[in-house]
Amino acid sequence: MKPILVQKYGGTSVASIERLHNVADRVIKAVKEGYAVVVVTSAQGDTTDELFEKARSILPDPKSAKREYDALMATGEKISIALLAMVLISRGHDAISYTGSQAGILTDSKYTKARILDVDTRKLRYDLAEGRVIVAAGFQGVDRDGWTTTLGRGGSDITASALACALDAVRCEIFSDVDGFYTADPRWVPDAIKLDALSYDEALELTHLGAGITHPRAVELARQHNIEIHIGSSFKEQAGTVIKSEVPVEAERHIRGVTCRTDEVKISVLEVPDQPGIAAKLFGSLAQARISVDMVIQNMSRRGINDITFTVSKADYSEAKPIVDSAAAEMKAKTVDYDEDIAKVSIVGGGIADFPEVAAQMFSALGEHSINIKMISSSEVKLSCVIAEADAKTAVQALHQVFNLSNS
Amino acid sequence: MKPILVQKYGGTSVASIERLHNVADRVIKAVKEGYAVVVVTSAQGDTTDELFEKARSILPDPKSAKREYDALMATGEKISIALLAMVLISRGHDAISYTGSQAGILTDSKYTKARILDVDTRKLRYDLAEGRVIVAAGFQGVDRDGWTTTLGRGGSDITASALACALDAVRCEIFSDVDGFYTADPRWVPDAIKLDALSYDEALELTHLGAGITHPRAVELARQHNIEIHIGSSFKEQAGTVIKSEVPVEAERHIRGVTCRTDEVKISVLEVPDQPGIAAKLFGSLAQARISVDMVIQNMSRRGINDITFTVSKADYSEAKPIVDSAAAEMKAKTVDYDEDIAKVSIVGGGIADFPEVAAQMFSALGEHSINIKMISSSEVKLSCVIAEADAKTAVQALHQVFNLSNS
Repeated sequence: MKPILVQKYGGTSVASIERLHNVADRVIKAVKEGYAVVVVTSAQGDTTDELFEKARSILPDPKSAKREYDALMATGEKISIALLAMVLISRGHDAISYTGSQAGILTDSKYTKARILDVDTRKLRYDLAEGRVIVAAGFQGVDRDGWTTTLGRGGSDITASALACALDAVRCEIFSDVDGFYTADPRWVPDAIKLDALSYDEALELTHLGAGITHPRAVELARQHNIEIHIGSSFKEQAGTVIKSEVPVEAERHIRGVTCRTDEVKISVLEVPDQPGIAAKLFGSLAQARISVDMVIQNMSRRGINDITFTVSKADYSEAKPIVDSAAAEMKAKTVDYDEDIAKVSIVGGGIADFPEVAAQMFSALGEHSINIKMISSSEVKLSCVIAEADAKTAVQALHQVFNLSNS
Repeated sequence: MKPILVQKYGGTSVASIERLHNVADRVIKAVKEGYAVVVVTSAQGDTTDELFEKARSILPDPKSAKREYDALMATGEKISIALLAMVLISRGHDAISYTGSQAGILTDSKYTKARILDVDTRKLRYDLAEGRVIVAAGFQGVDRDGWTTTLGRGGSDITASALACALDAVRCEIFSDVDGFYTADPRWVPDAIKLDALSYDEALELTHLGAGITHPRAVELARQHNIEIHIGSSFKEQAGTVIKSEVPVEAERHIRGVTCRTDEVKISVLEVPDQPGIAAKLFGSLAQARISVDMVIQNMSRRGINDITFTVSKADYSEAKPIVDSAAAEMKAKTVDYDEDIAKVSIVGGGIADFPEVAAQMFSALGEHSINIKMISSSEVKLSCVIAEADAKTAVQALHQVFNLSNS
């Protein structure tokens, strides 16, 4: 059996017949290099948006009909895989398209954000052994009842990583219109530079914190199975960013990048009488609806009175609000405060926690620009501050400069 | 269990959100009348054509990559079912979409023109019992390997009829932009009138002979299971044409309609030395490629020399030609003659064979208009003549008049 290579191409990379031929160039190159190739594709260009608009003209919140929403949204990839397989066939290569269901991607039944439970690789391995290029639909799976599910935004990267893990691929290459991770978003920081290599932990934080390059779960899966991920642009020849287990970092280069997310809402449940298990109830209900919370802070502000503050993604906001409101009423909170005008700026780097001066530098850099810090959270590899959305760009630029990242 | 009603809506009937609401009106009406409803839909409007054009920009003959062709073409219906289910949900009705695979429509693996082998109705019956409206994708199925197949042009009607049979429905209603069978195509014969009822045999001949209203296999399946088919327009309230086993026909009304097909090619394999089993070989190869032949005539023109003439659909022409050419070479035929400029005009009616004067009337009507007859074939319920395509309209008008069909 040849070594298996998984390549994932995003929507822009497959947006036209011409671009599908570009993708085929890369695939055929990998075949000629001796790999058994599994290609994972997203839907073409604007297809997903067009399908969403159709759905929205029927239901103001299409996700309220979750099962049908997933059935609909999964069709975009079903089109692109057949087209790419045809392109490869037209160029004399044996290729075969697989929907998520056909590829054996078993998920739970949490429509719109399903999790992959298992991948049954028997058919895939058979076709690879027969010398066929597999073209698999990203973003989708099938639940135990045989219904179509989708994995949520960025789900095609998860598919690619999951297939690479299940097939024990030599690596997973993720191609889109960005050519890798940068020290900061180049649109805001023109002298930001590309990072050649990241550890899984660093990449995980960067994706979580808004680098928007790939999906955290794709990195998480790859970490568990120790599969290298290569991030690159399908339009360029240069190497992008490699994500792998061990990345040598010089001591003085512990800050790898500055990121910013503006797609979150800050929720404060204020003046909650102290009672055991109260936070658990609130976050339990959110978890059941598969809504991720971040930056959780609980202040015992006065005797026996708590303030609980956290952030959720704006995409989950409409679903989260009634859950939070009803939990707040149940726990007799005085009020709930929602703040949509926030940004979370973060600095990321392995072993950041070992350098306490970094935190001081970050806070003072923000202070020098009169930027007010609303929340702080930290981990082994990152330090995040929630600030006003209007200050986001200034903050990112200031932090990129103070940590001298353009000389990484 | 409530009585089950199957309704099929064509592409024009589901072409826009507004039209999907019209369809929902009809579905909801049937639900309120006490039916458990299974809706079968085609792809929206021009979707199928658009997908075909995409494929054709990759492969001049997209069907040469049959498996991928089917995977691609089946996506159109996967979109329309999810949208229609959403429309029903938006109007407070529990609805659930089913792809061909999910609906248990098992077919053989003859891509682009698969045949339904079996329908596993367990899931469908469960959801019907739960009070859900089923919205099933027409035109598609799944083979034993789990790959998507399509049933060919008009396949959604076959799906509807097959589901009606498998679920033992009270009837199968087929809605499209035509409101029923007519004594002739009203575009050519303005005083053609709609036929209220047809026997299965008559309807079969009419569909085979080019009425273009529904698919012969839909009628064939319904005949086998004695399921009534109602043909009507989704844009009108009036009744269309009912197809059922016993239709009372007065003796003098044995001609029911005049039809015309211009989508066939006449193929003549000329001067074949006589040898047993020669025709079987030719037609065996065509059958293996699932190419239907019609109007087969074999003439022993001179001692030991045969001419074999038959017609195939233009859609099958490019596939049929190499098969015929190679068979002709093998059987040492002198030449093969292909004639694309033909029309097959037919008169249809139960018991037509019992009235020999009908044939005489037909031939003399054509003769009076100087129309040359190239081939003749007949059955219990039809009489067909192949003529030049240029004469088609004149022939249909003449036959409609001579058999006085506007007073049916």
